[in-house]
Amino acid sequence: MGSYQNGVVDGERSATPVDKGVDFAQYFCTYAFLFHQKEMLSDRVRMDAYFNSIFQNKHHFQGKTVLDVGAGSGILAIWSAQAGARKVYAVEATKMSEHARALVRANKLEDVVEVIEGSMEEVTLPEKVDVIISEWMGYFLLRESMFDSVICARDRWLKPMGIMYPSHARMWVAPIRSGSVDKKINDYEDAMDDWYHFTNETKNKYGVDMSVLKKSFSEEQRKYYLQTSLWSNLHPHQVIGTAALVKEIDCLTVTVNDILEVRSNLSSSITLENTRLCGFGGWFDVHFRGRKEDPAQQEIELTTAPSIDNGTHWGQQVFLLHPPIRVSEGDGLNVSFLMKRSMENHRLLEVELGCEIRQCSGTILPSFNKKFYIE
Amino acid sequence: MGSYQNGVVDGERSATPVDKGVDFAQYFCTYAFLFHQKEMLSDRVRMDAYFNSIFQNKHHFQGKTVLDVGAGSGILAIWSAQAGARKVYAVEATKMSEHARALVRANKLEDVVEVIEGSMEEVTLPEKVDVIISEWMGYFLLRESMFDSVICARDRWLKPMGIMYPSHARMWVAPIRSGSVDKKINDYEDAMDDWYHFTNETKNKYGVDMSVLKKSFSEEQRKYYLQTSLWSNLHPHQVIGTAALVKEIDCLTVTVNDILEVRSNLSSSITLENTRLCGFGGWFDVHFRGRKEDPAQQEIELTTAPSIDNGTHWGQQVFLLHPPIRVSEGDGLNVSFLMKRSMENHRLLEVELGCEIRQCSGTILPSFNKKFYIE
Repeated sequence: MGSYQNGVVDGERSATPVDKGVDFAQYFCTYAFLFHQKEMLSDRVRMDAYFNSIFQNKHHFQGKTVLDVGAGSGILAIWSAQAGARKVYAVEATKMSEHARALVRANKLEDVVEVIEGSMEEVTLPEKVDVIISEWMGYFLLRESMFDSVICARDRWLKPMGIMYPSHARMWVAPIRSGSVDKKINDYEDAMDDWYHFTNETKNKYGVDMSVLKKSFSEEQRKYYLQTSLWSNLHPHQVIGTAALVKEIDCLTVTVNDILEVRSNLSSSITLENTRLCGFGGWFDVHFRGRKEDPAQQEIELTTAPSIDNGTHWGQQVFLLHPPIRVSEGDGLNVSFLMKRSMENHRLLEVELGCEIRQCSGTILPSFNKKFYIE
Repeated sequence: MGSYQNGVVDGERSATPVDKGVDFAQYFCTYAFLFHQKEMLSDRVRMDAYFNSIFQNKHHFQGKTVLDVGAGSGILAIWSAQAGARKVYAVEATKMSEHARALVRANKLEDVVEVIEGSMEEVTLPEKVDVIISEWMGYFLLRESMFDSVICARDRWLKPMGIMYPSHARMWVAPIRSGSVDKKINDYEDAMDDWYHFTNETKNKYGVDMSVLKKSFSEEQRKYYLQTSLWSNLHPHQVIGTAALVKEIDCLTVTVNDILEVRSNLSSSITLENTRLCGFGGWFDVHFRGRKEDPAQQEIELTTAPSIDNGTHWGQQVFLLHPPIRVSEGDGLNVSFLMKRSMENHRLLEVELGCEIRQCSGTILPSFNKKFYIE
């Protein structure tokens, strides 16, 4: 297989050709499993949002042409057809496309929905479309970097007055408390204790001194236990300060360059009396608003913010601070946020969080800067 | 990156070029982690076998040249040097080679051990060697198909009277009992119950009939829960019949063709009164015997047979029969065994087990044939 370009050569980061074979082996292949599709199709909040966005805005679909990017099982394509679309192109890169085709037929929509197996960057459609619909969001919005494919589709296949479903997306971050930090610190310390016993044994029993590897082992374990973001379904009570907007995206105008790096300075206030700042939680929301010239009749929101009843399969991404820091109501946080793609794998992300705490009293605690990996 | 040939074009199976990028992404990368190396270095049975095979057979190493294939942390190369080798080449495909180099230096062996980063198929050595040592065995011996690289090394770099460490390998299979079969059958049935509720919900709430996918979903779940071999550390009491030898390998003479397919007819007798045949366990052993012209002074065995005290990180591979079959002491099993490589990934395996049960009474139960996946 060949390769395709990922991203635009601009600014600091040059485009690294993506090897398609590797991309399939590491990324696409998981979507070929019905079990994985079922997990997403069982996410009630996700399903309700897309279902409502389509059926409460039929005027966007009736008699129109639609493109479903990364169609998976074909659910969005099928709903678009049921909402009255004249023609729907459902593009899916994996063999899941065969199941999508079977579903289309079983639901008597084969005259409307055409399933095309292939990557969005490579397929050719017979015409441009009125609507591009896609469920492209990964953890913390941009993990998986699938939005690149949606942008590519938009630039190639969306008519001038066409509409994006969803139309907008936002990333949020808030300070949190979490028992996970204690567990992870313990796990790391246990791993280092075990290393100590291991190197003793290897030296005494087998005559090989492995102590020179301690630093590397420690870095590897630190990265694994303390610097890799966690998936979590946070309880709203774990959010201890105001949420800050990291990024706003207009899906009609955003470019890949705009999302190669996400850089932002944020402010947050602690809202809980005497608590531990254990880290930050990150999540996203998307909105279905149509466009200025052709707005939605019913605006729909899909949010993945911490919730008791309306959690989603995305959860939130948790970035732990070790050790946690005592904070109190009214303390202010100045946070510098930088997110970029991993050099080794463009579908994974790296985050640098800098934080300065201004206590109520006026004291400013020394700022710290930590690097995290969204794997 | 390019590709290299895997296997020889002969017989039924043609060689499929292996994409190196994909191979790295799926296979090699796990060996770049110190945590993984430490797991293997902490396997007491494994370490003792190789340590003893070297240090109780120093005559094979003193003043000799050695090649360590897939050196990892470099432990075997270091031991070879400590046993008196004149020169050791430690070939390692991943960045673990850098840690190996540091270990060699820290143990003051840099004059003897040369670490070379690269794949065995591609590196060039300055000379042929007296000994090839390697720990290449995967689950059930051949998972990972690393032995291909050892054979390649032998054919290119072993002197005519050179020695292989280990010198021999065997695969074994025995009938077993296991509570896992009940659990897996339950898991599968739960998954299908859940599918039923899922399709009802998707139809009633979201207007899409997904029942056409039931067969595919069922096959996917069957494969996952019932047809994928399990890793297990079997207790000897779980072995309910005599172990049968599946394959014997002489590491000096075996070719890749010999191991592309492993085909064997086996016999086993049930040794437990009134029990359930829940499946088969598969394991291996290797021996360090030297060669006829230059034998070991102390023959060492490394076995992964079910054991109370001497379990290894390899465990055994378990192939479950669903439903289990009632058998009794003296019943005879005629088993046809066929193992070959997965078309999608040459490092994974597929096994077909056919079994005919001849009861003590003389009754012959209908034979069955089941396919399994070693993932």
